[in-house]
This record gives sequence, C-alpha cells and structure tokens, in this order.
Amino acid sequence: MTADPDVSPVSNVHRVRVLWTDCDPAGITFYGNYFRWMDEASYYLFKAAGLRWEDWRSRWGAIGIPLISAHADFRSPSAFGDELAVLSHVSDWGTSSFTVSHRFTNGDRLAAEGWEKRVFCTGDPADPSSIAAAPIPGDIRAALGG
Amino acid sequence: MTADPDVSPVSNVHRVRVLWTDCDPAGITFYGNYFRWMDEASYYLFKAAGLRWEDWRSRWGAIGIPLISAHADFRSPSAFGDELAVLSHVSDWGTSSFTVSHRFTNGDRLAAEGWEKRVFCTGDPADPSSIAAAPIPGDIRAALGG
Amino acid sequence: MTADPDVSPVSNVHRVRVLWTDCDPAGITFYGNYFRWMDEASYYLFKAAGLRWEDWRSRWGAIGIPLISAHADFRSPSAFGDELAVLSHVSDWGTSSFTVSHRFTNGDRLAAEGWEKRVFCTGDPADPSSIAAAPIPGDIRAALGG
Amino acid sequence: MTADPDVSPVSNVHRVRVLWTDCDPAGITFYGNYFRWMDEASYYLFKAAGLRWEDWRSRWGAIGIPLISAHADFRSPSAFGDELAVLSHVSDWGTSSFTVSHRFTNGDRLAAEGWEKRVFCTGDPADPSSIAAAPIPGDIRAALGG
Repeated sequence: MTADPDVSPVSNVHRVRVLWTDCDPAGITFYGNYFRWMDEASYYLFKAAGLRWEDWRSRWGAIGIPLISAHADFRSPSAFGDELAVLSHVSDWGTSSFTVSHRFTNGDRLAAEGWEKRVFCTGDPADPSSIAAAPIPGDIRAALGG
Repeated sequence: MTADPDVSPVSNVHRVRVLWTDCDPAGITFYGNYFRWMDEASYYLFKAAGLRWEDWRSRWGAIGIPLISAHADFRSPSAFGDELAVLSHVSDWGTSSFTVSHRFTNGDRLAAEGWEKRVFCTGDPADPSSIAAAPIPGDIRAALGG
Repeated sequence: MTADPDVSPVSNVHRVRVLWTDCDPAGITFYGNYFRWMDEASYYLFKAAGLRWEDWRSRWGAIGIPLISAHADFRSPSAFGDELAVLSHVSDWGTSSFTVSHRFTNGDRLAAEGWEKRVFCTGDPADPSSIAAAPIPGDIRAALGG
Repeated sequence: MTADPDVSPVSNVHRVRVLWTDCDPAGITFYGNYFRWMDEASYYLFKAAGLRWEDWRSRWGAIGIPLISAHADFRSPSAFGDELAVLSHVSDWGTSSFTVSHRFTNGDRLAAEGWEKRVFCTGDPADPSSIAAAPIPGDIRAALGG
C-alpha cells in the first residue's frame, strides 16, 4: 500500500500475470478477465488497508460489497505471459456506496482503466431477498482515506 | 431472432441458466459473469443473423471484434437456478466500431443492463501487435440492421 | 432424461456449446472447462430426475455434494463453435458417496470421458469445518436408479 | 525452484490465494479451480526451469502441451482467503508424453493431490486437426530433471 497524492491518500498496486487460460484464440486476453482482476485488486486494496473481506460477517455483520455498476475502457491488448500492474484506490464515497478505480499498466503501456461502483450490504446469504444496503462503517471509510 | 421495433430491426434473445459455479459465498451471481454472458449473447446475436464468429478468418480475413469499452448496471441480484433472458441488439454503428446492448431479465424483474463497444479487427493472432481496426464489412452491417 | 440400459436405468444428455472464451491461444478448449461442464451436466442429470440442487437445504438439510475425486481422459480436441453432447449417469453407489460418469461426444467423435466421485454432505456454509458426510437420502438414490 | 530429493531433482512451489470468486454458495472452493491451478502451477514449474510457455512456437516450433488425462483427489476443503502452496514436479516421462504431479497444502493440512498427463504437440492453431504429438525435445526434458 502506498500513499499516492495524485489519486488518493490510500492506494495499492496488485500484480497480475496473464496466463494461458486468460487468453482466447486471437491470442489476447478475454476482456471479462479485467473485471475478475478488478474484483481481485479491490480485495487486495482492502487487505492492504487492514480490512479483510473474510471478516465481513464476523467484524461488520455484512454480506459483502456487491456491484451497482462496472465499467472498463481497454487501451491496448495484453497477451500470454504479460505482467500487469493494477493501481487501485477509492475515488468516490457516498453514504452506502463507493467507487473503486483501477488502472492497468503493462510495462510502460496503459492496458485498461475501469471502475466498480459497490454498495455496502447486510443480509443473509441463504436468502438473497434479504440483502439490503447499509451505511458504510466509519472504520472502513477511514482506512481507505474517505 | 425477432424484429423488435423498440430496439432495432434485428435483435435476439439468449437464455442463460445461473449455475452453482456462477455464484459466490454470498449466494448471488458474481458480477463478472454478466460480461461473460454479454460476450456469449453477442455470439448468439451474430449467429441468429447468419454471421458465425467461427468464420472470422475464412469469410472476412478478420481476427474478431475485440472490446474498446464495456459497461454494466446491476439492477437486482440473481441466484443459483435462475434463468435469465438476454435481449441483445446493435444499438450504435461507427465505421470500424459498433455497440451491442444487452438487457437481462429474470422472470419479470430487470436483472442487469449493459453494453459492449467493439471494433472490427484484422491481424495475425500469432503477433498481437499486428491487430488493427478495419471498416466493418457491408454484409455484417446489413445482417444486423445497420 | 432417458432410460439407457447400457449405462444405467437413469441417464441424461446435456448439450454444451464451446464458446470463444472456452478456447485458448492454441485454438482448442482449455481442459479445465470439461470439469466445469461435468459439474453442470451433473446438475442437469439431477434436475431431470426431479432433484433440484437449489433445494439442498430446504428439502434435505444438506450443503451439497462436494467432490472427493475427479478424473477425465481427453480423446480428441474440441474447438470454438463445436456442440458437445454429455451423457451422464450415476455409475456407482456407496453409503454417503457416489460416482457420476460423463461421456462427451462431438458429432460422431468421442471428445472426453470422465467421472466425479461426490459425497452427500450436511453442515453450515458459514463454517466450512462443520461440513461432514451423511448417508445419501433414499429419495435421491431411488430417483437416480440406485 | 528447489531440488527436493523426495520428489524429483526439479520441483517448484507456486502459491495461490483462494479468492471470493473461487468459492461457491457452500463457502468452499469449487473443485474445477484446482485444475486451473494445476495448469498455472505447471506454467510456473516450467518457467522456474527456464522454459517459457510463451516461447512454444519461436523456440520449439510447438503448439503447446495439451492434456491426455487429468486427475485430482480432494483431501480437505479450502475457503475464501486461504493461501495454498502447490508443490509441482514431473513424475513420469514418456517419449512424447509426461506427467506433472501437484500437491496442494493449506497451512499444515493437505488440501488436494493431482496430476496432469500432457503431450508435446506441434501443429497450426488455425487448424486444430493438424495438431499431433512429437518427441519431447531434449532441452525440455533435461531442464525438468528427465
């Protein structure tokens, strides 16, 4: 975790290797993987800030932070064997929702940029209809620079 | 394939079952799957219009239609066993690029809406740096209502 | 669901399309997908027999049927656009465990054969350490020809 | 890469984090992921031995090392946040085929054991029917202790 004043008081860099199974017959990364990697990079951003997703239920009585929206712009293709660096930070805070922004670089090329708008939720996993938004706890907000 | 005047002269409905492996420990569909399903629904939209992606190289000398951008808004959670109907059509046409819009319904609930901006590309899969945009062939455009 | 005396009193054929994202840069299906498809084919075998996995908890107080072992032999490659037929049946019954066998054909070629040894389990998903084997209920066994 | 006389002159340990998206509604890792991780661990075993899969075509005129068979035994469940260590080595050598064995530990518990029987292949990715087995090059065999 680093403090990068250009993006946020709190950011994290997560490294991803493009594997054989991430690539399609055109030899380039299937785009859906960038969303999987954004989810993964958000996990590591929270972890770097001392917030383990494994503790949603025990620490915050929460079910997790499902998505409201997700977006990505693909700037240059990546291929098998490339190592991508994903710089992540929370770029916007609401009461229950927040946005995590991600920037993928592949060496000195920009590979992709994207964001996830997520909402803090409580509820019972056995009953999806019980899932509901709730205010973001202060300790989560503070740890991520909000 | 149906002609739906509210969306486009050419649209398609593809059905997706939410399987065990599509769901996470919160019991709901991981959001990245919606992007996989949009790619799948685009394949079936083209196929319904007589355009097989399997023929990119032999019929059009093309490598495929990689993504420039992708976006989704998640309206209600889906869970294991749900059957989603994905209504897809091309909603915008450029010279080399075009946008495929998708609407996911889960029974009578809206589950998600999204779009993929794609670009028609030629090149050699063995050399990703050779991949370049090219004008969309007239037969592809015509078959999809453009 | 059909009754095929060569395999079992109860079997099912599930059809799978090999999609763009299932294939790797060698142009053939990544082998891990066959295990995903075996899981999917088992779901549809049970469903065809009137046993919905969605009802594990409510109907049987169960957590599911996790794997003890899995095996596959790959006989011929499959590629983008191929449609595979998966013939599935329960080939062996124990007290708590059973084996589901799957045979993948690609047109008139054999593509793969495999099996999953699974165990009927009860427990609390929130506490993985609570998961334990239990005898297979009689209605499940009977519905699948055991 | 380490030299572990109990397994092979050449072995490698690759570490895998069980992520949110690797787990199912029962809260445990979907079994298909172990096969994806075996493929990944094989990549890193070769890489540690100086053999980059990215160089199949340029260095060996090869298409890759597709699977003939795969097998896994699941010894204990893993869950979100667990870190698995995968110890990999080539356990058997034929003329064109070889077996990579993998052992997954989760802290001090054995999580899974498995193997992949693979075959060295040449051919043209644009024509899957051209793919054929070929003798394993001597430099690959030597680098992996064969």
